[in-house]
Amino acid sequence: MNINGKPMRTIWVKPDGFPVEIIDQTALPHAVKTVALKTCDDAAYAIQAMLVRGAPLIGVTAAYGVALAMRDDPGDANLDAAITDLAAQRPTAVNLRWALDEMRAVLAPLPEADRARAAFKHAAKLATDDVEMCRKIGVHGLALIRDIAAKKPGKPVNILTHCNAGWLACIDWGTATSPIYQAHAAGIPVHVWVDETRPRNQGASLTAFELQQAGVPHTLITDNAGGHYMQRGEVDLCIVGTDRVAANGDAANKIGTYLKALAAHDNKVPFYVALPSSTIDWSMAKGSDIPIEERSPDEVLNITGRLADGKIASVAIAAAGTPARNPAFDVTPARLITGLITERGVTTATPEGLLSLYPERRSGGLAVA
Amino acid sequence: MNINGKPMRTIWVKPDGFPVEIIDQTALPHAVKTVALKTCDDAAYAIQAMLVRGAPLIGVTAAYGVALAMRDDPGDANLDAAITDLAAQRPTAVNLRWALDEMRAVLAPLPEADRARAAFKHAAKLATDDVEMCRKIGVHGLALIRDIAAKKPGKPVNILTHCNAGWLACIDWGTATSPIYQAHAAGIPVHVWVDETRPRNQGASLTAFELQQAGVPHTLITDNAGGHYMQRGEVDLCIVGTDRVAANGDAANKIGTYLKALAAHDNKVPFYVALPSSTIDWSMAKGSDIPIEERSPDEVLNITGRLADGKIASVAIAAAGTPARNPAFDVTPARLITGLITERGVTTATPEGLLSLYPERRSGGLAVA
Repeated sequence: MNINGKPMRTIWVKPDGFPVEIIDQTALPHAVKTVALKTCDDAAYAIQAMLVRGAPLIGVTAAYGVALAMRDDPGDANLDAAITDLAAQRPTAVNLRWALDEMRAVLAPLPEADRARAAFKHAAKLATDDVEMCRKIGVHGLALIRDIAAKKPGKPVNILTHCNAGWLACIDWGTATSPIYQAHAAGIPVHVWVDETRPRNQGASLTAFELQQAGVPHTLITDNAGGHYMQRGEVDLCIVGTDRVAANGDAANKIGTYLKALAAHDNKVPFYVALPSSTIDWSMAKGSDIPIEERSPDEVLNITGRLADGKIASVAIAAAGTPARNPAFDVTPARLITGLITERGVTTATPEGLLSLYPERRSGGLAVA
Repeated sequence: MNINGKPMRTIWVKPDGFPVEIIDQTALPHAVKTVALKTCDDAAYAIQAMLVRGAPLIGVTAAYGVALAMRDDPGDANLDAAITDLAAQRPTAVNLRWALDEMRAVLAPLPEADRARAAFKHAAKLATDDVEMCRKIGVHGLALIRDIAAKKPGKPVNILTHCNAGWLACIDWGTATSPIYQAHAAGIPVHVWVDETRPRNQGASLTAFELQQAGVPHTLITDNAGGHYMQRGEVDLCIVGTDRVAANGDAANKIGTYLKALAAHDNKVPFYVALPSSTIDWSMAKGSDIPIEERSPDEVLNITGRLADGKIASVAIAAAGTPARNPAFDVTPARLITGLITERGVTTATPEGLLSLYPERRSGGLAVA
């Protein structure tokens, strides 16, 4: 997708193969800054401090982190250390573990001398694969939007999304936003209700920014407001991303997703979760087993933004000494999810639905995405 | 209640009878500022700009606004003008209209020379009545908390509240917080989950501040987080306030209340709405008829807080040009409300429940609160 008219991805390698570069997403929407990742530690920091975020992008960044580690020291001990360190940065998104498992499987059998080159090559493949999966998610989701548009000719399809499951959460296209971008490109009128997504405001700072850059009509609302608009018939469809889908179809996603799923269910608004298959955790029977990351209370107590003079600053919103808690994700039960939009098609959020799209999982075999 | 150990109310008259003074709630929690209301216009501005807010306090401030108008010009035309102007400031809280109706009924029959004195006297009575109603709400709500405490000896009762229905929303005690303060005073261990309440953050800036001042254990969370804590069994009870209850028990309250009621229902957490009878709109059959105030998008796009140097500043959270919408209230359907806590007791959110507490309404007579 484009920023200021220039095509960009969220992570790339400089033409001479080093360093890896990313968009520093903590600076958006106020500034477009790129940051170089030169070591595995740089990659781990970028994941932890959320310079990169979003389950698919976390996975690819971790893969490049392993590649950077192999560039410095391709030994077995360093491979293990890099994977262990990277895996510890964010507990909820399963793509992190998935990407590291992929990298280990490719690199461990190789002689040390071949590992760095193979690691960069495989990380690039994961990135390319993610772009293609997101594109396909968009194709399948577009059909859902087209169906709704056909029922309200001349009026926009109103889509609510939470957090940022946009191209900034992936490599390109996004998961939840891919159907939206493809509908917009196909000339279907769409309008997106963008949840602010406290505490880190990824809706306000990333999703609204993405949609603005792409020229897609949108309106920023507080996280509190979505239920009201659903009650009033002003939401036709919800599409969100996810950080981990359990084998029963339960989906962990940014905190507050569950509340929107409840409101959608109460108002008979279809609620879809968009994901590449790398986000399915076949080893986890149900969502309540998914580890929920708890982040610093400071993210709740302080909000960063742009002062009138253009400078970036944080303001404290509560009295000094106010205790706060900050769970970063919640789990939406499968019963509230109308369907899962994957690169292989749309299915129900059930074990049967998932297995119908990924039949190779019936035998317990390795997923082939 | 106390601020920095000093007993305060939210609105009072100086000892020599003029002017009226209020706490400027837009400055909290960063500073405790009092503002003088010398004219009806001052009162109207204080309501519109939310220097005072909360349904009961809006009502009493409007009553004092009429008194200030009568002090300047006690003629019929000015009485009408004052009431019309004050009523237009906030559309959702019915207490505003209720208090103005009360003032008109008292003042219209009087000779002009008697109106100013009678107006100040009646405004003071509405304030005193509100304190007593809130105290009684606390007595009735305390019984609910005591019942839950009895089932988990030695453990705190975890109560979630949204926005500020505390003493700062009333004259003293609060509505939703009155049972909490009385439980705390009775030695029952309570812990309050305080919803931040975007966009104006009344939870973070007012409720957390009130509870801190009163020494009641509490934790600030984003509006997104409450459902997660309910799923995990960490919420025993929800109590919120309301700006208007329809005759069928539907309750309009701060935007986002509906989402918490859905989560409470989904997790079998009791969900109570606390209110004085002045908040019941007997003329409104159902909640979907309640007018919902839409406030400035600027409240969504900018957040005010305290910089590191102690100065107060606003920061923009989205890219320039981002469109936003800002509905200030939503309606929680009666079916999601476990009960209404009023000054006369706890009842179901049904026409029968309301009429059982206010039987004088069966004949269409005037409510005697």
